[in-house]
Amino acid sequence: MSGLPFIKMHGLGNDFVVLDARTTPIDLSVSQVQAMADRRTGAGCDQFIVMETAQHKDADVFMRIRNADGNEVEACGNATRCIARIVMDETGKSDVVVETVVGLLRASAGEKGNVCVNMGPARLNWDEIPTAEECDTLNMPVTVGPLEGPVGVNVGNPHAVYFVDDCEMVDLMAAGPHVETHPFFPERINVEVVSKLDGNRLRMRVWERGVGITQACGTGACATLVAAVRRGMIDGRKAEVILDGGSLTIEWLENGEILMTGPASRAFSGSFDPAVYPGQA
Amino acid sequence: MSGLPFIKMHGLGNDFVVLDARTTPIDLSVSQVQAMADRRTGAGCDQFIVMETAQHKDADVFMRIRNADGNEVEACGNATRCIARIVMDETGKSDVVVETVVGLLRASAGEKGNVCVNMGPARLNWDEIPTAEECDTLNMPVTVGPLEGPVGVNVGNPHAVYFVDDCEMVDLMAAGPHVETHPFFPERINVEVVSKLDGNRLRMRVWERGVGITQACGTGACATLVAAVRRGMIDGRKAEVILDGGSLTIEWLENGEILMTGPASRAFSGSFDPAVYPGQA
Repeated sequence: MSGLPFIKMHGLGNDFVVLDARTTPIDLSVSQVQAMADRRTGAGCDQFIVMETAQHKDADVFMRIRNADGNEVEACGNATRCIARIVMDETGKSDVVVETVVGLLRASAGEKGNVCVNMGPARLNWDEIPTAEECDTLNMPVTVGPLEGPVGVNVGNPHAVYFVDDCEMVDLMAAGPHVETHPFFPERINVEVVSKLDGNRLRMRVWERGVGITQACGTGACATLVAAVRRGMIDGRKAEVILDGGSLTIEWLENGEILMTGPASRAFSGSFDPAVYPGQA
Repeated sequence: MSGLPFIKMHGLGNDFVVLDARTTPIDLSVSQVQAMADRRTGAGCDQFIVMETAQHKDADVFMRIRNADGNEVEACGNATRCIARIVMDETGKSDVVVETVVGLLRASAGEKGNVCVNMGPARLNWDEIPTAEECDTLNMPVTVGPLEGPVGVNVGNPHAVYFVDDCEMVDLMAAGPHVETHPFFPERINVEVVSKLDGNRLRMRVWERGVGITQACGTGACATLVAAVRRGMIDGRKAEVILDGGSLTIEWLENGEILMTGPASRAFSGSFDPAVYPGQA
């Protein structure tokens, strides 16, 4: 096939263009990424993933992530499930290791094409969130309108989880930026508003740091489950977290690590025309 | 290749998923079209085009058009250029005929991959626009805020073209719906606001009937050129019309027909996964 081949995938509607640079290196400029990520004139995506040969001996693949604006980012839970799914389908293995710039992520095949990823340990100390001064991260002193006393959890990135009676009623568009940029959070913060439903389920809405309201934030779902366990709100250490884009099952292991299970869906395979990717022969 | 193959194209950012049903019929439900047109979980497009075997002996291909919501529509100038481009690339012919539910459209290859389409005759009588009562379509009695005296042109669909000093300053979001639904236009109307630039160029912004502000409306550019010729605003009968999404060159022939020349760009070829299009083996 002529042109540059790719796969289009999504996890709960968070969508990715995936390129395979394991045999032939692919060097993409910022403007090339932007052209391919354009939803009308390119293939369209939130993030751009390049699969590279793993550096670490235990890893099956190296995952490099760039936002649609071309800037590289460190981690993305939804993308990890998708890349693990591709490697599982290729190799027939049910357990794979995805290497990223911040370390190894272990993934295993779940039911119905779902993928379970070990997201690593939750960090709970105030200086790991981080906050501007020492505090009890189970009840941080950050009140914005009717939102008060959030739980702080760092899952590779920082989260402030507010529990409320009905999160659908929260004006997250208004509150999100105030919490994100509050001086108590020197590295800014992701914001979740969460309500407990029956049957050990949690309904969560998210304001992502630097992005705004999104359909699905995997690390936000992890932080939410950890916060609910710390507050004693659920039975055991496992629950379904219901996001705008769909559901994730999150479990906080006794050893402190978090398991995230959810879908990794393939939409189509494609091949960019040379007009979009002139670098390709 | 497994799955359902398609081509993703665009004309000035107006984008299309193109399926080829010339050898194997493709019967798509509304929900299948919606799934494929979704920009995150499908391939994403404004319109969905199915290429079918031509019915008319002079035609090279039959073009069926559906909006992203699954409903069939009659005509689309940007899509006609793209389908003509595909047939030209396949056959090596520089002149092709595209059949639609409303008739035959003749297209020829232009410079730099551009395509020229004969859009048929402009219709100028008040009952062809149509308007609610007899009027001079060179200066119709429809005033909305600072906009007054539009030119009426029907190019397969109806247009009201307002000439203003600086169309960038017009609050089209506010004025568009008032003109579109004005009782003077019993079938509603597309709305253009246009400023003359130097060098026989026209700058046009468009409010599309039933849609809103869009990046590019081919029939709107045709109506704009015809209106400018009728008003004696340009030299000759040909001009460049500059839309938000790019430029089209429009010529109004002495025989009354309109030629529209513009880009037809291929973004990528793809193949839907069975999860998106379960009907495919």
